[in-house]
Amino acid sequence: MKTNQAIPSIIISLERSALDRWGQGDPSGFLEISASDVVYFDPYLEKRIDGLEALTQYYEKIRGQIHIDRYELLNPLVQVCGDAAVLTFNYVSYTGESQDRWNCTEVYRRDDDRWQIIQTHWSYTQRV
Amino acid sequence: MKTNQAIPSIIISLERSALDRWGQGDPSGFLEISASDVVYFDPYLEKRIDGLEALTQYYEKIRGQIHIDRYELLNPLVQVCGDAAVLTFNYVSYTGESQDRWNCTEVYRRDDDRWQIIQTHWSYTQRV
Repeated sequence: MKTNQAIPSIIISLERSALDRWGQGDPSGFLEISASDVVYFDPYLEKRIDGLEALTQYYEKIRGQIHIDRYELLNPLVQVCGDAAVLTFNYVSYTGESQDRWNCTEVYRRDDDRWQIIQTHWSYTQRV
Repeated sequence: MKTNQAIPSIIISLERSALDRWGQGDPSGFLEISASDVVYFDPYLEKRIDGLEALTQYYEKIRGQIHIDRYELLNPLVQVCGDAAVLTFNYVSYTGESQDRWNCTEVYRRDDDRWQIIQTHWSYTQRV
């Protein structure tokens, strides 16, 4: 069991590793650290996705289609509450001349000393 | 201390009470149940808001300006993890002939047997 001080760096490291793979078209980085009961929002959905099976089906449709040159993970904050950790950050992805700006909330839960995502919420920053 | 079974109904009740007041132009329903370290996203911001003081300043600017005739809180789900509870739902507000559709994630934390919001994330559903 790690001390509370170490949890933020563990969580941010998990997220960066998943984002690195995501930017190369590989959604498995996120799927591998998501719990079976994960719930998920992004701006392309009519409603929340419930469960890893449904999220997997959704992500498999875009496997290989994402390419991000580089990204910035801005001002990440981890709020630790026992076996839950809430990671929030702003994110900017750069591809060629274009950039996208996002808000993100990830809730991680520690199950048997392994941190897994139980909630993901991606939305565009100030695109209203 | 309530049993885990009761937590979802407590959380959803807190959220509905705050939403009822919100729809009448009163942001205090949310401010009163937000923790000092609350973080906040919505589609109008350049970046995450950190802390109750900053959120209060933001909300005070729109006090009295919101009017919602009625709303639907769709498919609310509460994931309980010790003293943390993650509430997610889709939300539709109706005012006159117009409607707005939202995704929402609220993370509540139990401090001294009182549940308070530590993270709020509102985004539009499928407005991309």
